[in-house]
Amino acid sequence: MRKTVSDLHAELVRYQLVAWTAGNVSGRIPGEDLFVIKPSGVSYDELTPETMVVCDLDGNLVEGEHAPSSDTAAHAYVYRHLPEVGGVVHTHSTYASAWAARDEAIPCVLTAMADEFGGEIPVGPFALIGDDSIGQGIVKTLKGHRSPAVLMRNHGVFTIGKDPKAAVKAAVMCEDVARTVHISRQLGEPLPIPQADVDRLYDRYQNVYGQRSPR
Amino acid sequence: MRKTVSDLHAELVRYQLVAWTAGNVSGRIPGEDLFVIKPSGVSYDELTPETMVVCDLDGNLVEGEHAPSSDTAAHAYVYRHLPEVGGVVHTHSTYASAWAARDEAIPCVLTAMADEFGGEIPVGPFALIGDDSIGQGIVKTLKGHRSPAVLMRNHGVFTIGKDPKAAVKAAVMCEDVARTVHISRQLGEPLPIPQADVDRLYDRYQNVYGQRSPR
Amino acid sequence: MRKTVSDLHAELVRYQLVAWTAGNVSGRIPGEDLFVIKPSGVSYDELTPETMVVCDLDGNLVEGEHAPSSDTAAHAYVYRHLPEVGGVVHTHSTYASAWAARDEAIPCVLTAMADEFGGEIPVGPFALIGDDSIGQGIVKTLKGHRSPAVLMRNHGVFTIGKDPKAAVKAAVMCEDVARTVHISRQLGEPLPIPQADVDRLYDRYQNVYGQRSPR
Amino acid sequence: MRKTVSDLHAELVRYQLVAWTAGNVSGRIPGEDLFVIKPSGVSYDELTPETMVVCDLDGNLVEGEHAPSSDTAAHAYVYRHLPEVGGVVHTHSTYASAWAARDEAIPCVLTAMADEFGGEIPVGPFALIGDDSIGQGIVKTLKGHRSPAVLMRNHGVFTIGKDPKAAVKAAVMCEDVARTVHISRQLGEPLPIPQADVDRLYDRYQNVYGQRSPR
Repeated sequence: MRKTVSDLHAELVRYQLVAWTAGNVSGRIPGEDLFVIKPSGVSYDELTPETMVVCDLDGNLVEGEHAPSSDTAAHAYVYRHLPEVGGVVHTHSTYASAWAARDEAIPCVLTAMADEFGGEIPVGPFALIGDDSIGQGIVKTLKGHRSPAVLMRNHGVFTIGKDPKAAVKAAVMCEDVARTVHISRQLGEPLPIPQADVDRLYDRYQNVYGQRSPR
Repeated sequence: MRKTVSDLHAELVRYQLVAWTAGNVSGRIPGEDLFVIKPSGVSYDELTPETMVVCDLDGNLVEGEHAPSSDTAAHAYVYRHLPEVGGVVHTHSTYASAWAARDEAIPCVLTAMADEFGGEIPVGPFALIGDDSIGQGIVKTLKGHRSPAVLMRNHGVFTIGKDPKAAVKAAVMCEDVARTVHISRQLGEPLPIPQADVDRLYDRYQNVYGQRSPR
Repeated sequence: MRKTVSDLHAELVRYQLVAWTAGNVSGRIPGEDLFVIKPSGVSYDELTPETMVVCDLDGNLVEGEHAPSSDTAAHAYVYRHLPEVGGVVHTHSTYASAWAARDEAIPCVLTAMADEFGGEIPVGPFALIGDDSIGQGIVKTLKGHRSPAVLMRNHGVFTIGKDPKAAVKAAVMCEDVARTVHISRQLGEPLPIPQADVDRLYDRYQNVYGQRSPR
Repeated sequence: MRKTVSDLHAELVRYQLVAWTAGNVSGRIPGEDLFVIKPSGVSYDELTPETMVVCDLDGNLVEGEHAPSSDTAAHAYVYRHLPEVGGVVHTHSTYASAWAARDEAIPCVLTAMADEFGGEIPVGPFALIGDDSIGQGIVKTLKGHRSPAVLMRNHGVFTIGKDPKAAVKAAVMCEDVARTVHISRQLGEPLPIPQADVDRLYDRYQNVYGQRSPR
């Protein structure tokens, strides 16, 4: 799990979702109340399985030589309250954060959004770092929602998944559709996809293709 | 052909036409009712000639260890109905998809568009995955049209070519002109190119330069 | 210090803050009235610790085979008047320069801006190269301001830091937030963050996290 | 000269000025009525000093195994009519072409533009490939103009320089300022730089810095 989480940070860099050290991936250790997360203030080039840190579900450091990411409390809150979640990602990716700064959800106007997010990508509340506010905002917005991504107002994106790779995929796709829908709206109104078609696409992608590894 | 198709996926990555695994190239095997296509759910880094799969023109898997791309039915429909086509590419590239989400064709305001597309890049219908709807929309739009690219509404782009490389070139050029025309229109109206000049450019590029490998 | 400054130029390239040779990093040599800066007209690929040049605080060349950067006078003025500054960076990064060309400060609508800049990123005056005008504009704008970055009107960005790495981080984050806020404003008005929350975020980031290397 | 011209194409790729094979660099052979240019239809990865071709000033192939670039006639016309020019570059770079498609010159609102271009970047006429029209449009626009770059209407950019490297630098800087000024104008009007200051900046950059290799 240390290696998986360490390696997945390279995807954040590859898809240009992060500047400097502002983004992190974590993964729940199966069968234990622990998760692996990025250490604080270490650049992506220097990440190794050994530098990763392990925390309990209250966000306390259990193993590792570095302090855990400053976003650890939010990750921990998600793992504590959403037992089906095995991976969490946080970024300030440009287009997603641009929607978040306006407190606007991203409307579902692309079949790829229907597939992956099952409809719009919702906005969560403005919340300050330092207590459970961010974690609460994420869980309150995503619980029972199809979307694995939430745009936290004036802040950035959190995504969840059954494992860290799925959460990273959601972060990559979230920025991709945030950008395409933004650009489409710059010159007019993109056409909505009828709800029944959104449902059909989502159902097929999650169920039919889900069994044989999607696309 | 396996190697050609496998290698060409690197061009989709290089020109940033694809996020995660959302894009695919296929190539007809000359003289046979078969084509090579990307396997489903395999990342571009892991593609090799061996991982490619071979399908018949109904989209059935003939050879290979992975399931074929979830877009295989659309590729197969194109090969079945357009015998001159030897390569097909599908992407959700950003700017092309942005035009597609508004159901707007890209007007011909660049000499490079006249050369390559012979006029505007047309929009195809909204169509759901799961049957022949997407393939029908592609063929109906491109049959008899100069453009080797179609913007499928609320979805993405399909391009065709005499071989897979030509289809990849069309996908690269489609995104390039989709971006340039979008950006030009952000601050005013780009000037149209008179139809007679579009015809002259297209004719020269396809015929004169076509014989000595264009540009 | 030569090696540090030389290596940090690679970050300007990596984050695409510079075209051709139009950007430079300098670092004060601790305990001496000297600083290391990029030589003029040398491409980023060819920079080595040995090609770096050393200047005194009046901008005179003290050591090195190349002429110092044409922006040396501005760097020298900053070191002369802001003794706490250990690093200075100058770029023409795209989005920051776009705000500068309109003479507009970047409003604080992202928590990452509150963390790093403590509020808006201010604009400095229009100033010509050739005397102390640029240096004066930088120092007058940044002295007593929380922001380590100033947008020089019709020109580009200067950032400062306790060391060259901190100044480079400020340059990277400045372009990142300049881009995100620009994109957010393209489709509406981003919501401001209340001043009390900006203060709380800035205080926490600079003090609490400052002690254990931020993020 | 073959090696110089071959290597400089990598800068077009690095700065993302070209898609597929749509861009080319040429260089006059000092003391002879000949120039080296990119071969037609060869990808940038495959360029070597040996694949470059040599043409006379009427654009006829003198040496080389490939056909010369389809833009050779325009390059040749420039060398024939502007004897001080030692290098020519042609691209369809995105932002510059976007201004060209609207037939709009880029206003001088950045000190880097004043330095490098001495004022606005002008637009040339619409011209078809196949005779001397493009070459005439370039020469007529640039002769006696400070700018080494011309935006050819509905087409792309041509730049000139005392040698191929200077022409490539002009192409890189042209796209850089085309992008920055475009983005600045998206949210308001960038402030013009007074003509006297433009003159002062241009004079200094070309003369004072010109003698010790600019920046």
